[in-house]
Amino acid sequence: MLHDLNIPQSFPIFATATEAEKAPLVLTSVLLSLVIVYIASKLGGELSKRLDLPPVLGELIGGVIVGTSALNLLVFPESGATASDSLLMTFLQSISDLSPESVTSIFASQSEVVSVLAELGVIILLFEIGLESELRELQSVGYQAAVVAVVGVVAPFAAGTLGLMYFFGVSAIPAIFAGAALTATSIGITSKVLSEIGHLKSKEGQIIVGAAVIDDVLGIIVLAVVASLAKTGEIDILNVVYLIISATAFLLGSILLGKFFNKSFVSIADILQTRGQLVIPAFTFAFLMAFLANAIHLEAILGAFAAGLVLDETDKRKELDKQVVPIADILVPIFFVSVGAKADLGVLNPAVPANREGLIIATFLIVVAIIGKIITGWAVIGQPQINRLAIGVGMIPRGEVGLVFAGIGSASGVLDKPLEAAIIIMVIITTFIAPPFLRLAFKQSAQPAKSSVE
Amino acid sequence: MLHDLNIPQSFPIFATATEAEKAPLVLTSVLLSLVIVYIASKLGGELSKRLDLPPVLGELIGGVIVGTSALNLLVFPESGATASDSLLMTFLQSISDLSPESVTSIFASQSEVVSVLAELGVIILLFEIGLESELRELQSVGYQAAVVAVVGVVAPFAAGTLGLMYFFGVSAIPAIFAGAALTATSIGITSKVLSEIGHLKSKEGQIIVGAAVIDDVLGIIVLAVVASLAKTGEIDILNVVYLIISATAFLLGSILLGKFFNKSFVSIADILQTRGQLVIPAFTFAFLMAFLANAIHLEAILGAFAAGLVLDETDKRKELDKQVVPIADILVPIFFVSVGAKADLGVLNPAVPANREGLIIATFLIVVAIIGKIITGWAVIGQPQINRLAIGVGMIPRGEVGLVFAGIGSASGVLDKPLEAAIIIMVIITTFIAPPFLRLAFKQSAQPAKSSVE
Repeated sequence: MLHDLNIPQSFPIFATATEAEKAPLVLTSVLLSLVIVYIASKLGGELSKRLDLPPVLGELIGGVIVGTSALNLLVFPESGATASDSLLMTFLQSISDLSPESVTSIFASQSEVVSVLAELGVIILLFEIGLESELRELQSVGYQAAVVAVVGVVAPFAAGTLGLMYFFGVSAIPAIFAGAALTATSIGITSKVLSEIGHLKSKEGQIIVGAAVIDDVLGIIVLAVVASLAKTGEIDILNVVYLIISATAFLLGSILLGKFFNKSFVSIADILQTRGQLVIPAFTFAFLMAFLANAIHLEAILGAFAAGLVLDETDKRKELDKQVVPIADILVPIFFVSVGAKADLGVLNPAVPANREGLIIATFLIVVAIIGKIITGWAVIGQPQINRLAIGVGMIPRGEVGLVFAGIGSASGVLDKPLEAAIIIMVIITTFIAPPFLRLAFKQSAQPAKSSVE
Repeated sequence: MLHDLNIPQSFPIFATATEAEKAPLVLTSVLLSLVIVYIASKLGGELSKRLDLPPVLGELIGGVIVGTSALNLLVFPESGATASDSLLMTFLQSISDLSPESVTSIFASQSEVVSVLAELGVIILLFEIGLESELRELQSVGYQAAVVAVVGVVAPFAAGTLGLMYFFGVSAIPAIFAGAALTATSIGITSKVLSEIGHLKSKEGQIIVGAAVIDDVLGIIVLAVVASLAKTGEIDILNVVYLIISATAFLLGSILLGKFFNKSFVSIADILQTRGQLVIPAFTFAFLMAFLANAIHLEAILGAFAAGLVLDETDKRKELDKQVVPIADILVPIFFVSVGAKADLGVLNPAVPANREGLIIATFLIVVAIIGKIITGWAVIGQPQINRLAIGVGMIPRGEVGLVFAGIGSASGVLDKPLEAAIIIMVIITTFIAPPFLRLAFKQSAQPAKSSVE
């Protein structure tokens, strides 16, 4: 009976089938992707933790396992996959009876959404790192840390880039990108390991943490420079100078302007009375800074990091820190798992002859990555009693920022698969060996410092 | 000199220009969209709060202002907009010199990503409502609340649906959808207003809150049923029965199974040692439940709500509540602002003759929405002293769930623009009038209850 009703033309009953069918399935596929990401990140992270390794390493390996190298649950078009390569899409098709065209379109949308979520994850990670980095701390460890940091950036960058170009015939831009990926030290991993072995407050520990902070800033500037080179495609000295100046000016400028903005931020947060009165202004600022950095041809993450540094100076810092944690917890793993999932470790299989060049490159990168950081200990002057080996070893883990390089290099098309996989292997190996080596290096020094577990 | 290097073919320097150019700009456009969403939601929400109205109302109006009805900063293809209608896209094009094809493609990706973020927002909102709804509370207010809830669902649904069909010639499915949008009462708005005027713990207050909780559950079941009708397009009594049974079974089943799962959840959270040990298992569960609800042709939000109800029963509840708050704070506004932005209020302009039918429909919906809830007070039996008007008025605000109906109805193509706009106007008006009317209604009762502001 109800079907017999008069239907005026202005009231269409159904939208076109494809669109009405597609929209909820994109959501379904994103929900399933997130479930896979979370399970992979937790299994990997927890196993890693049990083996006394940094959890982020496990998240990455979890991503490798669900990704294009192994299970094919989470694959992306960038790594050459199509909808039929994705087990997730095959599963969706089996439960919902979709046409091949719809599957292709849903696969494209799902990949796009998950990629943007991953990018928001790394933006929030760098915002959080900015919030955790204290400008005052940097000032107190003084120039010892600065020397270690600069040596630890210049040595592996120069050795890596020139080595790739002259020994392996890699062209300039990917070589510079890979060299740049060798520069940054992971604040998170280093400080966590130091805290776990009770050396965070030792002289060596303080120099390592200070240098890692400076390194991260230098690494982000280097990233901004090389990513921009990748975009414009030219090695124009004027452009390099422009980028170094604009990245430094952007960072210093936002810190200086931040002194004024701090007060406005605090008073805005005080005026607001509705939910999210702290976190919404903070994220509006972080996303705006990320946008501005992008608009002047720097990386979005540099803007988010600067926003974090600025807001770290406010009275609201502790409360903000606490609120950012759960947001980072649900978004950051999407980044690490995606990086792992996109990495095709198959190109490093030594059984395939064509892969051998990539493997040799990976070995070379690992050697440069380790030696380039170990020598930084001997750059410390005026401290004859210091444990130089411990400082050098403490600088080895590349962690998050190294992966950011791999991810951005791959997304912008600068890094081909073997080089990207070599960088990821380098990050995994350096992160993997640092904790046990750091323990060994500190055993040499007579009395261990007081335990100071966070 | 660097340009002269030998470039092996296996190391391509650049990806195809379009892809390399598009990816960062999608991120840029999403970042800008989020900045717009946050500013609109906070300006609207805070202004609303200052005028003693629920903040969610202001977020919605903020969305209307930045959206297709006014500023055109944030527009979506669903409401018929193209890239050239979007001020945001025009701005991006002006700063980055894009081809029209790239702009169209970036606009499509940006809309897709923002829409999925909005959907994740409403999933998290319903998860949070589930966490806040206490099963024990429902049991204590007993059957008084149940009667009020059932009358408050049946009366406006029947009057609205039949009225639209027989007086206005609306076809069955959109009429049922609009009728369904009249059913739910907003827990958030109602309980907040009651708390603000110190009547949350009064007998009337307890019945209102209890009924609002039951109403929300009934509303979600109704939504699951009608959204599914919209998908299959047929009013098949067997299908309706299947849906009511499956929605009820899903909800009751997850609550019952939840008693077992609770313990596993707590022990998983206790075992985990890495960051996100509570929030990651919780969201994995919520997203999995949302996926399962979707897979059996119910709405994803029903799954998220059930997940929230289940996890509410665990010992981890308080800690989880606290961690979900900032996540909801940054994702939920994307939903409300998007709903507002997609609503074309232009169709309600009385100066255009073609709009008058829509306006009459809106007026009809508002009258049904108010009367259909006010009568619920007289459904309370065995309580001669009770303030029946206050109970009825307390049930009037539709809030979040009403908007969920409008958003889903619009996305699935069931609701045409005039009907969708009429529903949004109905939600705005009912939400708008409830707080002052509730105050008036309670002034009639002799002694006001003790103040109990949350």
